[in-house]
Amino acid sequence: MKVHNFNAGPSVLPNEVLYKASKALIDFEGSGMSILEIGHRTQPFIAVMDEARNLVRELMQLDDDFEVLFLHGGATTQFMQVPMNLLESSESAAYVDTGVWSNKAIKEAKLFGFADVVASSKESNYNHIPKQFTIPPKASYLHITTNNTIYGTQWQMTPVTDVPLVADMSSDIMSRSMDFNKYSLIYAGVQKNMGAAGATMVAVRKSILGKVTRKIPAILDYRNHIENGSMLNTPPVFAVYISMLTLRWLKEQGGIPAIEKINDKKAALLYDEIDHNPLFRGTVVKEDRSKMNACFIMDKPEMEEEFLKFCKKEDIVGIKGHRLSGGFRVSMYNALPYESVEVMVEAMKYFSLKKA
Amino acid sequence: MKVHNFNAGPSVLPNEVLYKASKALIDFEGSGMSILEIGHRTQPFIAVMDEARNLVRELMQLDDDFEVLFLHGGATTQFMQVPMNLLESSESAAYVDTGVWSNKAIKEAKLFGFADVVASSKESNYNHIPKQFTIPPKASYLHITTNNTIYGTQWQMTPVTDVPLVADMSSDIMSRSMDFNKYSLIYAGVQKNMGAAGATMVAVRKSILGKVTRKIPAILDYRNHIENGSMLNTPPVFAVYISMLTLRWLKEQGGIPAIEKINDKKAALLYDEIDHNPLFRGTVVKEDRSKMNACFIMDKPEMEEEFLKFCKKEDIVGIKGHRLSGGFRVSMYNALPYESVEVMVEAMKYFSLKKA
Repeated sequence: MKVHNFNAGPSVLPNEVLYKASKALIDFEGSGMSILEIGHRTQPFIAVMDEARNLVRELMQLDDDFEVLFLHGGATTQFMQVPMNLLESSESAAYVDTGVWSNKAIKEAKLFGFADVVASSKESNYNHIPKQFTIPPKASYLHITTNNTIYGTQWQMTPVTDVPLVADMSSDIMSRSMDFNKYSLIYAGVQKNMGAAGATMVAVRKSILGKVTRKIPAILDYRNHIENGSMLNTPPVFAVYISMLTLRWLKEQGGIPAIEKINDKKAALLYDEIDHNPLFRGTVVKEDRSKMNACFIMDKPEMEEEFLKFCKKEDIVGIKGHRLSGGFRVSMYNALPYESVEVMVEAMKYFSLKKA
Repeated sequence: MKVHNFNAGPSVLPNEVLYKASKALIDFEGSGMSILEIGHRTQPFIAVMDEARNLVRELMQLDDDFEVLFLHGGATTQFMQVPMNLLESSESAAYVDTGVWSNKAIKEAKLFGFADVVASSKESNYNHIPKQFTIPPKASYLHITTNNTIYGTQWQMTPVTDVPLVADMSSDIMSRSMDFNKYSLIYAGVQKNMGAAGATMVAVRKSILGKVTRKIPAILDYRNHIENGSMLNTPPVFAVYISMLTLRWLKEQGGIPAIEKINDKKAALLYDEIDHNPLFRGTVVKEDRSKMNACFIMDKPEMEEEFLKFCKKEDIVGIKGHRLSGGFRVSMYNALPYESVEVMVEAMKYFSLKKA
């Protein structure tokens, strides 16, 4: 029995990925060893790592200046690793503040140089993406968070700028077509759209590295990871393997354009219900709504607990909103079946009728 | 069919751990979700994390000043995280150089303050553990690597010192009884004796933290991890789960004293053969031999390739020595069955007879 898993991350994965991984845990490709027991410097695992890196390149259509890495540490490590590698201590990087995760990134940048917050939607509790802002031409880079899991907002455009563009895409990577080559560094904890917790994907342009004067610890220097084929130290073997399987699955679905169509359909179905059901109300301005995380509340907050209980009986999991935005958050990552959104919408309709 | 897995790490795991994990990949404790799909802030995973941390505390009999953390990043991250948290830039830490891994740790320490190499066995290609050295009383800490995977040496005693003692125990943690409370910080990549690649265990005394003046990035400050119950960011969920299962298994075996007896027996059996078989010769001085990684060569190096091929046919895996020490390295971590060592020894005997 599978539930309808709307978790914000770690979150739902394709069934075939789980079945394949479950078998590999006992015997990896007939080796007589579990995937957890093989040496990471042996050919079978090097092949896994290479395939994962190549699939990212292929699916995102990255140009040759990019290197793709699978690192330890989560996006939180990238919050400090990015400025450590790119921001001279006397210089300034531009950040757009679209919520909790941007703020964490801004805080870390300040340890290494200056962080210039060029725009923020804080005053409206992050219910939209700022559109009017000026990027200082001397900024070392511009950092954005393309999708904001907690508030349910998502950038619908790529900022036009001459400074290197850096993006935390943890919660919408691989979910929609974008011109990724407009970016200079893209990072993403893989546990939402491209794997399970324990690895972070970094796609970085070689041409932006090596320009800061500080000494960088070996494990935090992107150049070391590039030189070592993303195997500077023992990589998070199983997490990389799950990413490879998930990316293979994505390619089989038709890649990003194909999954985007389904993601569009899922989001349209849910937001349509939010907009037409008298009990519910979206919390984000319509034009900036996230197709990954839909946030909404009830006009009668006292009903929210009851609705949550009702959903639980319907095997709907993970829809309680983050404490900062309240209400509900329904996450619809790549692996979430359309049918799960149908079940969710049916639950909203039924509950509403019952209350009418 | 299982092979005899002598990999140096990642390495062999208990069968019951693999079977349990394989099931949890499909359905974790009847939740209708894979262990990879559950939220890390939900009760089922918090219970996993707490059990893993408590098992470390219990098995190592750590006193109350210790906090146990499961972090991202591998021991290589600890090489820099330790001095970042403990070494003032104007001060000096003492390091004993017992090989490649010590050297990497020393190199990182130099980025943060002074690293004083108080002893080294480099001149004899690290074939022993230095015994005569003086620890400057003002050293911020003394760092040792308790077991050296590449050379097959192992500390047989704990240095007596008043300065905080820091140890990289990646390759012999949980394999033998020690007075762990003599240490102030112990770290270990978990992929040898206590899990699979993707997590690092850190046991640190609260009383040694907060004494350096530098600003530490959030993800690298041990105090943040302690305050957040080892969940500052999304932890490497599956790697922590595998560690929890492996530690449970260890406890069921009778804990460290019980496994130590088996490890002693395994090492005795293999070293006895190395010492009595005319074809083979150990590379390490006897008193410093590692019970985890036995390194040996053949007097006739041209025979080594032939012996490797012979072993391969016997389903013996992972015994080729590291390029820095040559010959063979037979790793015998906790989960390696005694029977595998018997098979290894039989192969050595049979090969020797064939060649006689």
